[in-house]
Amino acid sequence: MFTMKPIGLARTPYAEAAAIPKGLGAEHRADGVLEILPHLEAGLTDIDGFSHLYVIWVFDRSSGYELMASPPSDTRPHGVFATRSPYRPNPIGLSVVSLLRREGARLHVRGVDMLDGTPILDIKPYLSSVAPGELRRGWLADAEARQLDSPDASEQRHADTPGNRR
Amino acid sequence: MFTMKPIGLARTPYAEAAAIPKGLGAEHRADGVLEILPHLEAGLTDIDGFSHLYVIWVFDRSSGYELMASPPSDTRPHGVFATRSPYRPNPIGLSVVSLLRREGARLHVRGVDMLDGTPILDIKPYLSSVAPGELRRGWLADAEARQLDSPDASEQRHADTPGNRR
Repeated sequence: MFTMKPIGLARTPYAEAAAIPKGLGAEHRADGVLEILPHLEAGLTDIDGFSHLYVIWVFDRSSGYELMASPPSDTRPHGVFATRSPYRPNPIGLSVVSLLRREGARLHVRGVDMLDGTPILDIKPYLSSVAPGELRRGWLADAEARQLDSPDASEQRHADTPGNRR
Repeated sequence: MFTMKPIGLARTPYAEAAAIPKGLGAEHRADGVLEILPHLEAGLTDIDGFSHLYVIWVFDRSSGYELMASPPSDTRPHGVFATRSPYRPNPIGLSVVSLLRREGARLHVRGVDMLDGTPILDIKPYLSSVAPGELRRGWLADAEARQLDSPDASEQRHADTPGNRR
């Protein structure tokens, strides 16, 4: 067993889960602030030079887990580790955000997809990407292809974000 | 405080930290196995369709943290959240691996950079990349540029991995 303590909180526009864009075609462009605890501010030294950051956080308002998850991006269930479902054995969330600017211990970022007040466990620099030609996206690509074929595709398109049922 | 329980262990070729490629130009091409606990196997359903996975794990053989870290990829210290140092407020590691194949609850992967026996907290599908043109890599890009200018660049090149001092 490992015990983790928040290093700060995320301030986001999302007071409740229903407000977070989810499912196929969802885009996370919302601005937010990562408020890091004042005594950890020195740990942010030189972070300003990175355009993108990984944020590791806790789904603190979810409890329990389901091994088969039903993401909003598909009509079929998938194994929880093949989705971003919040109902995971360890309720850890991972987001890639772009860093707009730093003000002391506050990081202004774009691309938040967590609830307001979410506890943050860690921040790391995003160093490199998988080349698009090497990336396969499993059931998600299948679900997108099925949706493009469906007659009511345009209505569904705005509903939500890949594999994230929160 | 949040309590996390391993979902499995990583089997890797690295019995000790010194064996893991680190610093500038380091490449992680080693094969390994993510051994997930048998009762969680159903959570891996459909993971086979993804080419790359995020693995979230614990630096279980590090203790304590330093707000200023000295990564092997640079001669200058940087804030811990701008590095991959194992000496973090929460000792969480994050790796992107490519999935070679699944055998039941065992995921054969390439690109491991953790010690043999490392506890795994979570696995998630890698869904999209930041476009190379949008990515800035802060002090790491600076350190690379300085190294390319240095007369003994070729010797140092094989030493280690970006920002990871483990």
